[in-house]
Amino acid sequence: MARYKLVLEYHGHPFVGWQRQKNGISVQQVIEDAITEFSGEKSTTHVAGRTDAGVHATGQVCHFDLIKNTDVHTVRDAINFHVKPYPVSVLTAELVNEEFHARFSATERTYLYKITNRRAPPAVEKGLSWHIPQQLNTDAMNNAAQILVGRHDFSTFRAVGCQANSPIKTLDYLSVERDKEMIFVSTQARSFLYHQVRNIVGTLKLVGVEKWSVEDMVEALAAKDRSRGGQTAPAHGLYLRKVSY
Amino acid sequence: MARYKLVLEYHGHPFVGWQRQKNGISVQQVIEDAITEFSGEKSTTHVAGRTDAGVHATGQVCHFDLIKNTDVHTVRDAINFHVKPYPVSVLTAELVNEEFHARFSATERTYLYKITNRRAPPAVEKGLSWHIPQQLNTDAMNNAAQILVGRHDFSTFRAVGCQANSPIKTLDYLSVERDKEMIFVSTQARSFLYHQVRNIVGTLKLVGVEKWSVEDMVEALAAKDRSRGGQTAPAHGLYLRKVSY
Repeated sequence: MARYKLVLEYHGHPFVGWQRQKNGISVQQVIEDAITEFSGEKSTTHVAGRTDAGVHATGQVCHFDLIKNTDVHTVRDAINFHVKPYPVSVLTAELVNEEFHARFSATERTYLYKITNRRAPPAVEKGLSWHIPQQLNTDAMNNAAQILVGRHDFSTFRAVGCQANSPIKTLDYLSVERDKEMIFVSTQARSFLYHQVRNIVGTLKLVGVEKWSVEDMVEALAAKDRSRGGQTAPAHGLYLRKVSY
Repeated sequence: MARYKLVLEYHGHPFVGWQRQKNGISVQQVIEDAITEFSGEKSTTHVAGRTDAGVHATGQVCHFDLIKNTDVHTVRDAINFHVKPYPVSVLTAELVNEEFHARFSATERTYLYKITNRRAPPAVEKGLSWHIPQQLNTDAMNNAAQILVGRHDFSTFRAVGCQANSPIKTLDYLSVERDKEMIFVSTQARSFLYHQVRNIVGTLKLVGVEKWSVEDMVEALAAKDRSRGGQTAPAHGLYLRKVSY
């Protein structure tokens, strides 16, 4: 038996998310069907982060097992051939040992959230960022973001339906940077609560439009109450960028 | 009467190109319909560069006249409202005098051509670059590109059906740069022949895969014969980036 680790890129738009569901096509189904097509084997993929409908990935990781050992370049190219016409792409395939688990072995996950901050809606990169026409104060957003770095009870940023045992997580990094009309929110942690990144971004927007001060962010975090946080930022601005092991 | 200059962004995919045609929707039609919707007036737009089907723009320019004078911010926002759901966006609208002509007053046009140079096809940015899986030598491409800078007979890079009076053009700038897996071909001239940029990029690819030397590029240019150039690079890698006046 051989275990393969794949690094994946995909556009979130056409999918109901990573996980198989009855109401539409999932990334998991497209990948597993492609594996079966080239190998003749049925194999289940295990993923590092189960992205929601509409969320993009540029460095998602999954693993799966095959009875027959196949060259990794063939695995990559064969899956890329069979996933067509879906916007999914295997960047790399490698052989890993049987202790490797895409989800449980992960030590760090990196997400990027993109905002287009200009009056005119994005056209070329439509669907690849959150369009916010009001001018955002990114320095204020970055200052407020630092309140959230570290080990906290993130209940204020936790979606209903989150299956984590505890709302306590350690956020290792969170920054807000501007490059002309684009704003990039970058964050890293061992793991995240359900909708945590999108709820943080939606709350940082309140700081960006200067409705909230840094002090409001302190209070929102301390409240441990979802109703005290901002909106859930839309899925199409979010990218799972990297998973470290 | 008031003359308006618009700077436009659009995704080329859904369009038959800039110009109105019977076989599908054009950017021109979407913009002109939006102008009529908000102003009640029928107005013809005049464009700086008539982009082909599939070609993107991040800085296209057009002008049009209205009998009734309207605030430029209203013009921008109203057109952006009425072009929905098409991927077209007015970045800026400004009042110009009646001597201004988007096409004839232009002194310089800047194009960008994007190549994704990696084994795996692009997924997130599908349709926004030319995917070339073979490793390209960008230093060699950039060296060969310099042969084309200056005033030359560009017949080798001129498409059949080009309506220009002369194949002689002055290329002011042409560079090939790499940023990891992305290759950016940038070029500037007062004006270009039909398919000139795409034919140049298709020919530079021959140098990139080391099928051609710089000497081959010299000979191809000197031949003044389209059959001596490389393929026409696909439309979806091309961006009209800027028009100067």
